[in-house]
Amino acid sequence: MDYAFLRAHDAVRESTPLIQCLTNKVVSNVTANALLAIGASPAMVDTPEESREFAQVASGVLINCGTPSSEQYGGMREAIAGANSAHTPWVLDPVGAGGLSHRTEFMREVLPLGPGAIRGNASEIIALAGTGQGGRGVESTDGVEAALDSAVALSRDTGAVVAISGPRDLIVHVGDTTRAVYLESGHPMLQNVIGTGCSLGAICAAYLAAWEDPFEAIIAAHAHVGAAGSVAAEKHHAPGSFAVAWLDALYDVPPADIEGLVKLTDVEGI
Amino acid sequence: MDYAFLRAHDAVRESTPLIQCLTNKVVSNVTANALLAIGASPAMVDTPEESREFAQVASGVLINCGTPSSEQYGGMREAIAGANSAHTPWVLDPVGAGGLSHRTEFMREVLPLGPGAIRGNASEIIALAGTGQGGRGVESTDGVEAALDSAVALSRDTGAVVAISGPRDLIVHVGDTTRAVYLESGHPMLQNVIGTGCSLGAICAAYLAAWEDPFEAIIAAHAHVGAAGSVAAEKHHAPGSFAVAWLDALYDVPPADIEGLVKLTDVEGI
Amino acid sequence: MDYAFLRAHDAVRESTPLIQCLTNKVVSNVTANALLAIGASPAMVDTPEESREFAQVASGVLINCGTPSSEQYGGMREAIAGANSAHTPWVLDPVGAGGLSHRTEFMREVLPLGPGAIRGNASEIIALAGTGQGGRGVESTDGVEAALDSAVALSRDTGAVVAISGPRDLIVHVGDTTRAVYLESGHPMLQNVIGTGCSLGAICAAYLAAWEDPFEAIIAAHAHVGAAGSVAAEKHHAPGSFAVAWLDALYDVPPADIEGLVKLTDVEGI
Repeated sequence: MDYAFLRAHDAVRESTPLIQCLTNKVVSNVTANALLAIGASPAMVDTPEESREFAQVASGVLINCGTPSSEQYGGMREAIAGANSAHTPWVLDPVGAGGLSHRTEFMREVLPLGPGAIRGNASEIIALAGTGQGGRGVESTDGVEAALDSAVALSRDTGAVVAISGPRDLIVHVGDTTRAVYLESGHPMLQNVIGTGCSLGAICAAYLAAWEDPFEAIIAAHAHVGAAGSVAAEKHHAPGSFAVAWLDALYDVPPADIEGLVKLTDVEGI
Repeated sequence: MDYAFLRAHDAVRESTPLIQCLTNKVVSNVTANALLAIGASPAMVDTPEESREFAQVASGVLINCGTPSSEQYGGMREAIAGANSAHTPWVLDPVGAGGLSHRTEFMREVLPLGPGAIRGNASEIIALAGTGQGGRGVESTDGVEAALDSAVALSRDTGAVVAISGPRDLIVHVGDTTRAVYLESGHPMLQNVIGTGCSLGAICAAYLAAWEDPFEAIIAAHAHVGAAGSVAAEKHHAPGSFAVAWLDALYDVPPADIEGLVKLTDVEGI
Repeated sequence: MDYAFLRAHDAVRESTPLIQCLTNKVVSNVTANALLAIGASPAMVDTPEESREFAQVASGVLINCGTPSSEQYGGMREAIAGANSAHTPWVLDPVGAGGLSHRTEFMREVLPLGPGAIRGNASEIIALAGTGQGGRGVESTDGVEAALDSAVALSRDTGAVVAISGPRDLIVHVGDTTRAVYLESGHPMLQNVIGTGCSLGAICAAYLAAWEDPFEAIIAAHAHVGAAGSVAAEKHHAPGSFAVAWLDALYDVPPADIEGLVKLTDVEGI
């Protein structure tokens, strides 16, 4: 596989994309810090009054449904409308899809509006694709491999790159051709720090904004986050210090090192 | 005193209880990380639409009144109803009780609904028990010892284990018998990090979910949090690095070490 | 210049001012920790029902418009009314002024109500003073020097100390006399950690509460935050570990060292 797309890393730093995050209150701080660390510029504008206006000037938008208040739902609708009117890419992070019916309805409402990428765990992607039984909140109870058919279906139906986080990540895009890879990187300790997955959703938006090919952009985003996890895990074995080191590594892992820290495998037979 | 209940530590790790937190926005991140660190699984579901549904599948619920929006009050009512219908334990953290009249009314409303535990500082517990003059926001201006009668009365009236955080903690349960202990552990530096007390409330819910005897569960939760504070204070003397080390220690303090890091003293004459 | 006002540092520690923060959800945790680190006591009370009551007992109030929900706008109005009725100083942090019209309207509404200080970046201050073209969210696209006239005008119109954060800070007060200084301190890495500027707004409120001369109070607040940034930057070169060290340094930088870590220069010709 051609790793040229790892240059997307530099493209983010050079363009400092402005990423509007409508995200859950648990992770807004770590998400903003993660965006700063990779060279993007975060803005957490999420009210109904301001979200459309801001999305029209943002470089990318994140819609994360982790703690959706009624006002934030309104903000999300406005942000998506603003992003679409400006042809700005937006990412859907379907936290809790399937396990929680109210937010799942909202996600089904916005799915046809053209997200550039959808990033979740296997249970969430299966639920969104309409084939699963729902999850246990934000945890995945399904394996990544079990979600392959759902990911393909969801990408075909929406046009989005679909990314599933797990022990190894799966990234799928059904466009003119169908492309799908497994990505091995990172470290299980990433699961012990809240917000690493949600931050990855925001980072996907930054890479989509900075790199033309959306499939490559999403792979590069996952590679960056996972490689930073590997670097952090070499130094720290408990979640407090690991989280600090992960943020440091997002900031200073050399692009040239990322290639050696991730392993990509084409998915066969799709 | 029999320290066998320190096995509750392992019980949490083995059962990975799913803890739904309806908590204040200041501490939601550290609370989620603290739950992950002790082996529990956090979910910050707190909207009116989703809270009842989720509480029915959660292992335990935290109600923390630190920054209560009108929607979150609605979510809290639904979560309590859902928890009670599923016989799931819930913990009340009465942040600011007495000092702030609007939230104190809400707490008085839910007190008769059967919390498994109530965890606060001395001023808050005195205010809830109806005998005090109110506090100064989230700070305690009363000593733990001065709150003993209030704690006994509050436990008798509600059936909850009542826990008071302070230089030494006081834990009281009035059931078939009356049990009360002082617990010395932790370090004053815990007071310099926002969210350690609020995280303890969530951790109480995790221990209640994983350990049958509620009095022992709440002691074990306090011992875990306090011992982690002692471990962290051995290494760091300023709040930023202490907070990181505390989270690390929540994750990796050996259960066998906790016994040596806490001192329990029966309360006489109650 | 007389550095005697650096004693304000000790005044904060001795009086432990209670600072009510109505701030954005992204930074509420780091803001509370920063206040604890400098010896103040944070309280994040921001609902319409409780904000007036609490502001009447608080020592200082922060109004930060970073993620303003409709309820929080209500809380801000109540907090300002409560603060003014009790002659308690309040600080306005006009996050996103100019770039976002809805919140800018709110800021223009409360500007005549007598903030003790206004702290923002150059774009925000220019927008508030009515002379600029608006900013790009929370980033500054104007230089500090370009905002001098706006700062003077805004201070004259409101009576507030006006502080602009940038590569060097500018602090202006138009009272019986006009005073203005540039303050060099800190480190560019502070820009890579979310919430350092917002925390500075809260710290300004603490210094206003503890020190009589408002111009000196705001300089001392900036010196404290900037000096802590310098101390942290000596040890760490990536944002995760820098943020931890900055919080440590806010806690333990010796007041006697702060003088050597900042450089004040009178602004000529105003």
